[in-house]
Amino acid sequence: MAVYTDISSEDLSQFLAGYDLGELLSYKGIAEGVENSNFLVHTGRGHFILTLYEKRVAEGDVPFFLALMEHLAARGITCPQPVKTREGRALGRLCGRPAAIVTFLDGMWMRRPDAKHCTAVGEALARMHLAGADFRQKRSNALSVEGWRALFEQAAARADSVQHGLSDAIAEELALLENSWPGNLPQGVIHADLFPDNVFFLGDKLSGLIDFYFACTDTLAYDIAICLNAWCFEPDHSYNVTKGRNLLAAYAATRPLSAAELDALPLLARGAAMRFLLTRLVDWLNVPEGALVRPKNPLEYFRKLRFHQKAQSVRDYGLDAERARA
Amino acid sequence: MAVYTDISSEDLSQFLAGYDLGELLSYKGIAEGVENSNFLVHTGRGHFILTLYEKRVAEGDVPFFLALMEHLAARGITCPQPVKTREGRALGRLCGRPAAIVTFLDGMWMRRPDAKHCTAVGEALARMHLAGADFRQKRSNALSVEGWRALFEQAAARADSVQHGLSDAIAEELALLENSWPGNLPQGVIHADLFPDNVFFLGDKLSGLIDFYFACTDTLAYDIAICLNAWCFEPDHSYNVTKGRNLLAAYAATRPLSAAELDALPLLARGAAMRFLLTRLVDWLNVPEGALVRPKNPLEYFRKLRFHQKAQSVRDYGLDAERARA
Repeated sequence: MAVYTDISSEDLSQFLAGYDLGELLSYKGIAEGVENSNFLVHTGRGHFILTLYEKRVAEGDVPFFLALMEHLAARGITCPQPVKTREGRALGRLCGRPAAIVTFLDGMWMRRPDAKHCTAVGEALARMHLAGADFRQKRSNALSVEGWRALFEQAAARADSVQHGLSDAIAEELALLENSWPGNLPQGVIHADLFPDNVFFLGDKLSGLIDFYFACTDTLAYDIAICLNAWCFEPDHSYNVTKGRNLLAAYAATRPLSAAELDALPLLARGAAMRFLLTRLVDWLNVPEGALVRPKNPLEYFRKLRFHQKAQSVRDYGLDAERARA
Repeated sequence: MAVYTDISSEDLSQFLAGYDLGELLSYKGIAEGVENSNFLVHTGRGHFILTLYEKRVAEGDVPFFLALMEHLAARGITCPQPVKTREGRALGRLCGRPAAIVTFLDGMWMRRPDAKHCTAVGEALARMHLAGADFRQKRSNALSVEGWRALFEQAAARADSVQHGLSDAIAEELALLENSWPGNLPQGVIHADLFPDNVFFLGDKLSGLIDFYFACTDTLAYDIAICLNAWCFEPDHSYNVTKGRNLLAAYAATRPLSAAELDALPLLARGAAMRFLLTRLVDWLNVPEGALVRPKNPLEYFRKLRFHQKAQSVRDYGLDAERARA
């Protein structure tokens, strides 16, 4: 939940004057998303989302995100579409920040996703990967294996204040991941943050994907591993094998997985757990005084990591590998 | 800024099934308002505001607020209108809380109101008071003079941690207010919280009033005193006499003020400053661990109180009393 930056109506009206969106009728900060400031804007032309990109998003990366949303939508993936100024620009500046307007997408994210939703997200992820295959822009993933040690170094000295022994446990796992991370699996555009709050449904039907602000060029199967972490564990931290099977089978039915991808899944899932464990740990240890955002508990991902460390093969995630293999 | 309670789409869909509003298409928490949880809801019938009333609002008071909004709208005051269930109920329950749906109002609140906006709010406040004259329900003001000592007692022991000498200064002022508070001025329905974020504008035109959740039966001129505090001071805490004149003159042109009301204004302004000083002080001293809401600085209202203590008459607020008198 966050609106970091407030906007005056004068500033917003002036910003909107560059667009063909009619008169500003109302705008309200949205209490969702933790990286950027989002506003629901009503104009003479309808409803739109205005995003101010806060400091975690590098201004130079925003054109990549906006171009990706256009590219995917042109290939049938429902996602917000950048609205352009009369001069054809999708990215502007407002309140000293990079700012963009995108179309408003109906749909609700599932607070309690069930196995059906996992089927839908598996298929949508595969469709997104296929639709991104001919996207030419590249963006490296700063939060993949090469970036984890720097995050760990920010947190190592105080990690044991969160849980005794956490620092050693992360150090050991990190060394293993660095030594064994697969480099030769199929690459492409990944969403990299496809948590339930970034997937909209209308009824039981998946109606769209949002928030492409971690999207990057990386191992496609790593995106699946992120989704296994984000969608297939229960609130008590137990892994739901039905949800996992649904997600993996629906993905593989749309984009068949190679033997190497299937074999790597447990390791990729460990990496995905490590990525969210580390960023949450750094946030947890660095809550600014008077913060408006309560950080998410990093230990949720330490527990998920423990599960993945015990997994032997994709079978432990619910998938009959023989059936899924490409 | 606050969404205290999140809602699942299943729970919201079930709640909406009681209304004639069509299918639920989307809902988003709004990062405004500090007392309740507000959601912008899109259904087949349009956009609406859903409010979950949090603990500061007594459930028994909600029917008063909803009836008042209906009453005022029927008399030409633009404000949100309660939407009723098929069975005619305006108040329901959702997530264990009282909940109501009201119509969505276009318009923006002014982050930097100018003198023109003060004219508009003075007139709107007077029109609201006139429109409320025949509203039959009563609700006493728990945050008027009789309620201040109890608030002070919650804060007295730690007030000096905010500013040295604050506790004594409040004690002295409180005794004076309790001894001299006027009891014989015209009474009626007051808004009691008509801050800039509760007044919408489209262009320079006032387009509506919102958030009636402090409304009560009290001294009408006290509502003016609250507005003087809320609208007529600059960010550097100086009083802007042009804004004050505009607000008071526009009010008096719509609802003429008696000599007794005009004479009481400096005292009422002291009381209004005390009310917000005390509630902010209590909030400031009681921020829960991990709070999502940063309390407002109470000292803003201590500085305003200092201004009012020096005021001799309504002339110090910018009004030529001879012209305004009824």
